[in-house]
Amino acid sequence: MRIVVLAGGIGGSRFLLGVRAEAGPAGEPAESVTAIINTADDVTLHGLRICPDLDSVMYTLGGGIDPERGWGREKETWTVKEELAAYGAEPTWFGLGDRDIATHLIRTRMLDAGYPLSAVTEALAKRWQPGVRVLPMTDDRVETHVVVADDDQGTNRRAMHFQEWWIRHHAQLHAEKFVPTGAEDASAAPGVVDAIAGADVVLIAPSNPVVSIGTILSIGQIRTALAETAAPVIGLSPIIGGAAVRGMAEKCLPVVGAEVSAAGVARLYGARRDGGLLDGWLVDETDAGTSVDGIEVRAVPLWMTNVDTTAAMAHAAIALAQEVGKRA
Amino acid sequence: MRIVVLAGGIGGSRFLLGVRAEAGPAGEPAESVTAIINTADDVTLHGLRICPDLDSVMYTLGGGIDPERGWGREKETWTVKEELAAYGAEPTWFGLGDRDIATHLIRTRMLDAGYPLSAVTEALAKRWQPGVRVLPMTDDRVETHVVVADDDQGTNRRAMHFQEWWIRHHAQLHAEKFVPTGAEDASAAPGVVDAIAGADVVLIAPSNPVVSIGTILSIGQIRTALAETAAPVIGLSPIIGGAAVRGMAEKCLPVVGAEVSAAGVARLYGARRDGGLLDGWLVDETDAGTSVDGIEVRAVPLWMTNVDTTAAMAHAAIALAQEVGKRA
Repeated sequence: MRIVVLAGGIGGSRFLLGVRAEAGPAGEPAESVTAIINTADDVTLHGLRICPDLDSVMYTLGGGIDPERGWGREKETWTVKEELAAYGAEPTWFGLGDRDIATHLIRTRMLDAGYPLSAVTEALAKRWQPGVRVLPMTDDRVETHVVVADDDQGTNRRAMHFQEWWIRHHAQLHAEKFVPTGAEDASAAPGVVDAIAGADVVLIAPSNPVVSIGTILSIGQIRTALAETAAPVIGLSPIIGGAAVRGMAEKCLPVVGAEVSAAGVARLYGARRDGGLLDGWLVDETDAGTSVDGIEVRAVPLWMTNVDTTAAMAHAAIALAQEVGKRA
Repeated sequence: MRIVVLAGGIGGSRFLLGVRAEAGPAGEPAESVTAIINTADDVTLHGLRICPDLDSVMYTLGGGIDPERGWGREKETWTVKEELAAYGAEPTWFGLGDRDIATHLIRTRMLDAGYPLSAVTEALAKRWQPGVRVLPMTDDRVETHVVVADDDQGTNRRAMHFQEWWIRHHAQLHAEKFVPTGAEDASAAPGVVDAIAGADVVLIAPSNPVVSIGTILSIGQIRTALAETAAPVIGLSPIIGGAAVRGMAEKCLPVVGAEVSAAGVARLYGARRDGGLLDGWLVDETDAGTSVDGIEVRAVPLWMTNVDTTAAMAHAAIALAQEVGKRA
């Protein structure tokens, strides 16, 4: 079975662990899984090109992630970061670990040499052997910027990189708008459109619906491929009982006028038959009874406590895909 | 007294500690000292612009050097280097420490932004407060390449960066020629020519005469300024009793046809009255009796055992400068 997963960083990585376990026999790689990863969180700091979501996926699937933090390398040290701060080099708020920096150095060097991000990602994956095909959503530069103001009246309105809003300001500044800068002119990375077209099922990971999945959908070729594929598209809610499982999705949803609920996210994505994204939607048992016009909703446990529970989520999503697929 | 010192890396750094102590009252900066530093060892590795000699000087005078190794930062760690090797990223033979990398990141970022190396060096020095003015010999890119062959017959002749010959091959490959690539078209960095013109004395540190001092002299504007300055030019021998005090100068001297001796180096530099570099030359007591046509030679202890012995060397060099200056 050819499974395509659209995913962001930490939540997406954990979900992919479950999909890989569900798709492949234990200990064998699930090369039939293609992960299409958000790159709009990417940022250049201290001259290093950093791809937080790609790295989270690569480190998580490759066994190099810090399991407590959920991002960055395990047994990480912070010598370079401290030294940069000793020089007074800004910014100091980004978590730039020593082990992580080796990844960024290789990526930056390859990009400077003219390799596209997809080729860089493939080269880095040779070390990590993630066991699934990891593709950036695009080889073009797309970066989410946040238009913020000091209050609802739009006082002191300005734009900043998503990372600055998210990490430096902990999403506490009033956000008026998210702008995926560069998305309009961006093409899908090589392999992305073909993977979606040839998929048996497309899964939308329980990632941030606005700044992770939303930015993937901001690439026109990906939106078109999702509309045209014969594969059912099944999403998993990142909101359980009205709150984000992880991250600060509840800070992002109101900005795009969506309700912070499992139903709110499904409505944001929209029903496929009405020009939206989803054929089916998995919500947590807490949200049983959720219904959204035009979308098949099922309630199953959605806490990614370990690989087994996460594999069960992937299993339920694939089962729902087969159900809606037969009906179509 | 305005003192100009031409210097390479490790030996030059240690000598500058002595000059600074001799020039300024204890605890006060000797801003009257200008150090003109070789940059032809510079190399770009893993996308980082590395200036080994400038860094050795900056770390040594700023109190950040590893005193055992003589290069790189004290309490250094090697996490990034190990991770780069885990990715299979070449080269793996260069000693790239984590603390050191912060310096290279800032330098690379500033160079990429268009700042000249002299401005970058000044910015980095704000942290280290070396207490002397540190100038790169040039803002232009000059890199020493070594033409090597597998034997005297010139079998398998090829060129490589000096660092590859020096560090990777431990200067064991048969060298036929050193080429300071880019030197012909390079200008002296801002301040260099004025410092030499306005100096009361110019000191040639006991650095490698070929690949450190020799490359500084390969910049035409510096050669001219040294020929024209009213200041006496006094050198200190890096060879004691027929062997290099440190480093592998004995591997370099024969390549340029010079004898590995205190006299051999003085002859390589040449007497100023005959169009060469030196008015005076300090040799170690071991080499007492050394004489070179047209150059005043004095024998004094030249082991840079600590700052006091090194300051005494600087003192002797300045005394010799005053002696030859009066005679002129």
